[in-house]
Amino acid sequence: MNIDKVKNIIKNALYEDIFTGDITTDNLIDEKNMKTAVITAKENGILCGIDIAIMTFNMLNSTLVFEILKQDGQKVLKGEDVLIIKGSTKDILKAERVALNFLQRMSGIASKTRKYVEELNDDSIKLVDTRKTTPNLRILEKYAVKIGGAKNHRFGLYDLVMIKDNHIKASGGIKNAVERIKNNLSHAHKIEVETTCIKEVKEAIESNVDIIMLDNMDNEMIKEAIKIIDKKAIIEVSGGIDFERLKYLKNLDIDIISLGTLTHSIKSLDLSLNFK
Amino acid sequence: MNIDKVKNIIKNALYEDIFTGDITTDNLIDEKNMKTAVITAKENGILCGIDIAIMTFNMLNSTLVFEILKQDGQKVLKGEDVLIIKGSTKDILKAERVALNFLQRMSGIASKTRKYVEELNDDSIKLVDTRKTTPNLRILEKYAVKIGGAKNHRFGLYDLVMIKDNHIKASGGIKNAVERIKNNLSHAHKIEVETTCIKEVKEAIESNVDIIMLDNMDNEMIKEAIKIIDKKAIIEVSGGIDFERLKYLKNLDIDIISLGTLTHSIKSLDLSLNFK
Amino acid sequence: MNIDKVKNIIKNALYEDIFTGDITTDNLIDEKNMKTAVITAKENGILCGIDIAIMTFNMLNSTLVFEILKQDGQKVLKGEDVLIIKGSTKDILKAERVALNFLQRMSGIASKTRKYVEELNDDSIKLVDTRKTTPNLRILEKYAVKIGGAKNHRFGLYDLVMIKDNHIKASGGIKNAVERIKNNLSHAHKIEVETTCIKEVKEAIESNVDIIMLDNMDNEMIKEAIKIIDKKAIIEVSGGIDFERLKYLKNLDIDIISLGTLTHSIKSLDLSLNFK
Amino acid sequence: MNIDKVKNIIKNALYEDIFTGDITTDNLIDEKNMKTAVITAKENGILCGIDIAIMTFNMLNSTLVFEILKQDGQKVLKGEDVLIIKGSTKDILKAERVALNFLQRMSGIASKTRKYVEELNDDSIKLVDTRKTTPNLRILEKYAVKIGGAKNHRFGLYDLVMIKDNHIKASGGIKNAVERIKNNLSHAHKIEVETTCIKEVKEAIESNVDIIMLDNMDNEMIKEAIKIIDKKAIIEVSGGIDFERLKYLKNLDIDIISLGTLTHSIKSLDLSLNFK
Amino acid sequence: MNIDKVKNIIKNALYEDIFTGDITTDNLIDEKNMKTAVITAKENGILCGIDIAIMTFNMLNSTLVFEILKQDGQKVLKGEDVLIIKGSTKDILKAERVALNFLQRMSGIASKTRKYVEELNDDSIKLVDTRKTTPNLRILEKYAVKIGGAKNHRFGLYDLVMIKDNHIKASGGIKNAVERIKNNLSHAHKIEVETTCIKEVKEAIESNVDIIMLDNMDNEMIKEAIKIIDKKAIIEVSGGIDFERLKYLKNLDIDIISLGTLTHSIKSLDLSLNFK
Amino acid sequence: MNIDKVKNIIKNALYEDIFTGDITTDNLIDEKNMKTAVITAKENGILCGIDIAIMTFNMLNSTLVFEILKQDGQKVLKGEDVLIIKGSTKDILKAERVALNFLQRMSGIASKTRKYVEELNDDSIKLVDTRKTTPNLRILEKYAVKIGGAKNHRFGLYDLVMIKDNHIKASGGIKNAVERIKNNLSHAHKIEVETTCIKEVKEAIESNVDIIMLDNMDNEMIKEAIKIIDKKAIIEVSGGIDFERLKYLKNLDIDIISLGTLTHSIKSLDLSLNFK
Repeated sequence: MNIDKVKNIIKNALYEDIFTGDITTDNLIDEKNMKTAVITAKENGILCGIDIAIMTFNMLNSTLVFEILKQDGQKVLKGEDVLIIKGSTKDILKAERVALNFLQRMSGIASKTRKYVEELNDDSIKLVDTRKTTPNLRILEKYAVKIGGAKNHRFGLYDLVMIKDNHIKASGGIKNAVERIKNNLSHAHKIEVETTCIKEVKEAIESNVDIIMLDNMDNEMIKEAIKIIDKKAIIEVSGGIDFERLKYLKNLDIDIISLGTLTHSIKSLDLSLNFK
Repeated sequence: MNIDKVKNIIKNALYEDIFTGDITTDNLIDEKNMKTAVITAKENGILCGIDIAIMTFNMLNSTLVFEILKQDGQKVLKGEDVLIIKGSTKDILKAERVALNFLQRMSGIASKTRKYVEELNDDSIKLVDTRKTTPNLRILEKYAVKIGGAKNHRFGLYDLVMIKDNHIKASGGIKNAVERIKNNLSHAHKIEVETTCIKEVKEAIESNVDIIMLDNMDNEMIKEAIKIIDKKAIIEVSGGIDFERLKYLKNLDIDIISLGTLTHSIKSLDLSLNFK
Repeated sequence: MNIDKVKNIIKNALYEDIFTGDITTDNLIDEKNMKTAVITAKENGILCGIDIAIMTFNMLNSTLVFEILKQDGQKVLKGEDVLIIKGSTKDILKAERVALNFLQRMSGIASKTRKYVEELNDDSIKLVDTRKTTPNLRILEKYAVKIGGAKNHRFGLYDLVMIKDNHIKASGGIKNAVERIKNNLSHAHKIEVETTCIKEVKEAIESNVDIIMLDNMDNEMIKEAIKIIDKKAIIEVSGGIDFERLKYLKNLDIDIISLGTLTHSIKSLDLSLNFK
Repeated sequence: MNIDKVKNIIKNALYEDIFTGDITTDNLIDEKNMKTAVITAKENGILCGIDIAIMTFNMLNSTLVFEILKQDGQKVLKGEDVLIIKGSTKDILKAERVALNFLQRMSGIASKTRKYVEELNDDSIKLVDTRKTTPNLRILEKYAVKIGGAKNHRFGLYDLVMIKDNHIKASGGIKNAVERIKNNLSHAHKIEVETTCIKEVKEAIESNVDIIMLDNMDNEMIKEAIKIIDKKAIIEVSGGIDFERLKYLKNLDIDIISLGTLTHSIKSLDLSLNFK
Repeated sequence: MNIDKVKNIIKNALYEDIFTGDITTDNLIDEKNMKTAVITAKENGILCGIDIAIMTFNMLNSTLVFEILKQDGQKVLKGEDVLIIKGSTKDILKAERVALNFLQRMSGIASKTRKYVEELNDDSIKLVDTRKTTPNLRILEKYAVKIGGAKNHRFGLYDLVMIKDNHIKASGGIKNAVERIKNNLSHAHKIEVETTCIKEVKEAIESNVDIIMLDNMDNEMIKEAIKIIDKKAIIEVSGGIDFERLKYLKNLDIDIISLGTLTHSIKSLDLSLNFK
Repeated sequence: MNIDKVKNIIKNALYEDIFTGDITTDNLIDEKNMKTAVITAKENGILCGIDIAIMTFNMLNSTLVFEILKQDGQKVLKGEDVLIIKGSTKDILKAERVALNFLQRMSGIASKTRKYVEELNDDSIKLVDTRKTTPNLRILEKYAVKIGGAKNHRFGLYDLVMIKDNHIKASGGIKNAVERIKNNLSHAHKIEVETTCIKEVKEAIESNVDIIMLDNMDNEMIKEAIKIIDKKAIIEVSGGIDFERLKYLKNLDIDIISLGTLTHSIKSLDLSLNFK
């Protein structure tokens, strides 16, 4: 992760919440009041974002002291403590909600991802995320997916060629599209094509692309596509795949399953902060 | 909403996705290629964020033309079109995912909120959100809650005094805390106190605060608190309230129910963009 | 105060003054030259902004050492030293003017405010500031008002409902306005109405608002309004109130006097920096 | 003026006041409500900042229409209208205070400056401002000084060499200082030296500098200095010069009088906005 | 190109040059003065950056009118006009140098690149740039390389895996490195390995990477490497390749030649702006 | 140099290269891996930018330790080490290219400048740079020119009046232009006029300007201009002056030679970083 980028996200989030000042804490708590706070899990899950939470507290007050009880990626049980924070009561209170907002969302994503990864239980197929992430938090959400045990698909429009259905419609077919891209790009990027039927799979194979996405296909069509592709390209299955579908797909000879749900539908993990 | 703030969020989100360039679209689609695209609902829900989606497309290309088929707050059914976009194929493709990411999240929040509001079906109790929002998107999420039919609680630490359990622990009891705040602040802000037991409710009443939050109390304790408060303060019930609990609470004589779930656990509404 | 916001203000101010470089100091003073400087009051007043001055010097050079002789809120007499700065001659010289510009303005506001507060000499009436602050320095100016002994009115358009004359004109009377606002907002914010005649005061009372501002009323009308309001709302007197008027108002049974003059008409306190 | 820089100042000022939203206007006034507002002088003075006020309104809503009744630099009398604004009631109300805050401060500076310029009434002596400006508003305040009829001294530490008393102390005398600067700089910038006694004036003359500042000297010493300088350098008189002192100084054979008071002690011009 | 990113670069560049104002033009030229200016080539070359120059002028004044005489990528001869600008004399003068600074640098890069491309004269080998670009101008310089006729290598550290000599040293050999990367990444990015000897080439082949860079090898070693690789990976030749070396390399069976010189050593194309 | 401004340039440059993350290093190198790297010259030249390089590494990781072997301005020979960096392997690798991009360009400029300065070998004539710098890097490039031994001309449009040919055309001759400027400006800035023929030189002398630029004149005309000016103004010779022309000019009685080539045509100095 690019730490500077992350710090900027955190700074803006603190700013969003505090703006001109925390009128409760600023008018109530003494500058010199010191306390020990502890963050505790209120349900089971996978912890993620402990460094982000610490950076959030630290950005308000660099003299706070932390004791990390659980690391990113560790399983936490309801009732278990995950982080101890010691220092200025005032600044702990001011940063509390923002730190928890990060920690709870990231842990929510990691927890959901872990559930899928454990269900898949197969090293030959990689689960990956998509670009269906929360605007301006992609770097944190993709990190949480990784902590959950899945891999990251492309980060944005800039790091992999993905020729989607709308591109194909707008550029006269897969062959034309791939050829044009190859003429314009150097050698540095892979080319992926989204296909929705067997005819497109064949076209993609003939165009010699690196990755073929089988998008929203039913099980029969996927099986046929696998045969046609015959190891000549990486196979990615995509399109509204839920937990139940995963159980079926894991038995097929595919390379990648991409899951929008890991980031577009999030249940925050319940965590709370209390003074000892 | 502060439009300038929102534009900044959108600009950053486009930047996050496109960065140095969309290597697929930039190397494939002709500058002069023009198309008509339509965004369609793939499930039932409440639409929210149509202006944000339009601003996203517009920020990349101010010559795009839009036909709004559904407004924020309207019910959409699976299969219904919500927005038509005409113009540069290139720029529609580049902005597609970011526009949808906003629209799907905001519609997801509005849809969930509407479900709660309709269940409550009572004008004398207001459903409100919390500060458990996605970092840096609070302005959009609070807007979506409002479109869904609920109201907004405070926006941040700067616009309402909320004396929470940790504040009370750190400042020697409710009475001391309220007195100190009143001495330091002028007359411009309301004062809310979080209470977790009947003893604290009584203390809050004696301190003459504007709002008393009954936090994580069971039904019996809530009923007792209502009696004690006896209309002398606004009553807000809070703490992990789900859909089932709401059915019970709506029969009580309370003013406000605050729901973290509206924003901390989001299921994006399924929407897609296709060229005609 | 939100320290991060303040640091940004200071950083921009240093940038405004130094830009590409201090061509005098950079071309004249040795990197290793060390000196002790002292900031001295050249007239009597209330000191305010000592932390801001220190942050200004510190931002240029974090190795400078400070000895604080007077704290914010303390009375300083002509000739008294307020701050000693030891370290790099170069960086002391570069930050001098910006640090003094902050310190002098803030002390000017605090000094003027203290004069009004001492004249009022009454704990039952609160003197407050307005939004007539210098653009982009509101956070510092409202802080200076507080150091001077008065309180802060709302910080901006986002934290208190204030229905002003122009709002009333544009929305069909006070009753309509208040009703509409109450329907749209939750419970978190107070509602204030600006009134300019007895008829409006009565309407405001009937609308059950939290605060009634008596704007630009003469003494007789204020007295009549006080009777009518009869403790049913907080009373704020406002509108071009100067030092002389204050002497009269302090004898009335009002809660708040708001003073634009505290921030819209500033006389900087004279302070200077000299090397020992 | 650098318009882009100014736009940034205005954008930040609107943001400071509105932040997440104007909770009064947003919850009260209809999007489609249109009105005509007029800004009126409530006391006599010199108008300054009319373009800034217009840019402020325009930044919130580019469809507002303006009729300029008074231009920057014109005398306005109590009761005279200066600007008409037509369009969205909502956006006029939201921008009102920020626009006035700029307009009142800038007009305050221009009015004070004009008073000094008219008292001086002498083309052979230039009145100039200093760097004692409000942090981050220097560009606007120096513009207001110019509109008032005086000239601008250097803009910052980057565009003129000014060897002040503290520089002299730190670098072993005027001669050494000037020589060192001349060796390090090219030919592009003038060199000014601050002097506080006749001995320093002589040293400055011998060092062949462009401008000699006579700082905090009494009338007798100034007269002696003028003789010694004998047209060999530009003479600038400085140091706590008030209106009374100006009357004396204007009879001397000096080139420049610099006045910190023009920007460090500001009385905003009283202006108000009302709907017709 | 990401236009928003480019606009930001231009805005900063104008700011860098103008800052508080163009003291010559602002104090000399009338607001209403209109003129026609023309940009003319003073030497032969390939034009690049005409849109950037136009955006620069436009950012200062959106009413300027342009007539484009030469497009990006066209050959220009000494004395030929490339762009006509009509409108505000003031704003043309203020933007002149910044616009030319962009145009001259970008044309310089395009001109140099074209020379190499024409010398290569072979479609089966692609010339590409490197990350040795001017800090913060990479997007413009990579664009100029493309206009010159070469292709772009990776844009940054984020879009292609490049295992360089220092990575290999720090991670225990090529095999370990590639294996570890493959475990951590999904399928979206290509993997390139930098090799400096035949032993490393063999290791890279065994690790099944996408691209093998032959770094700073002599001609004999390159020929041997080509044989060993035997079409199993893309071959990129790199390392201080100048114009003379290119003549030899073009006869080899390689895929890519990367040239730092295209961007790290720039001779601006001579262009000037004159009023007609 | 304004360090804060420089830090911003460096931060943006790191961001440009790393963006969401260094996918090679992040996926390959252990957080705890520590190494010693050394930067070595691969050709002879003048080193410049060693502090900038260190700040670049430091911005990613403030625990890195540096040993500076060569200072800015020192001659380095091929093979000599210039900087040792010890610490996190990961962060050294991530910052390597950006640090070198700064160091190589700045050293390139310093090396070229030194060559010109040594050829001139005359203290009575100053070599200076121009505004033909790389957009947004002017502060670093002007610093490199100074380290190379030349001086800096004006930094931008804001710190010296330079009436150029296009200004003269647009304002009715040199006399009018100078007079108008003198009326509008105070005393703080010098006035330079660009002349292209003897007639203009005479006009400039009569207008009593500080500096006269002889632009693109041949040797004969320059000699005539020198006679006419007769020490009444500073003489600056400018216009496409290369190394050969310098040999001639150095024998003339002129004050300043300005050289665009120092910054508009750059050959980076070859430097590399290797782990020990």
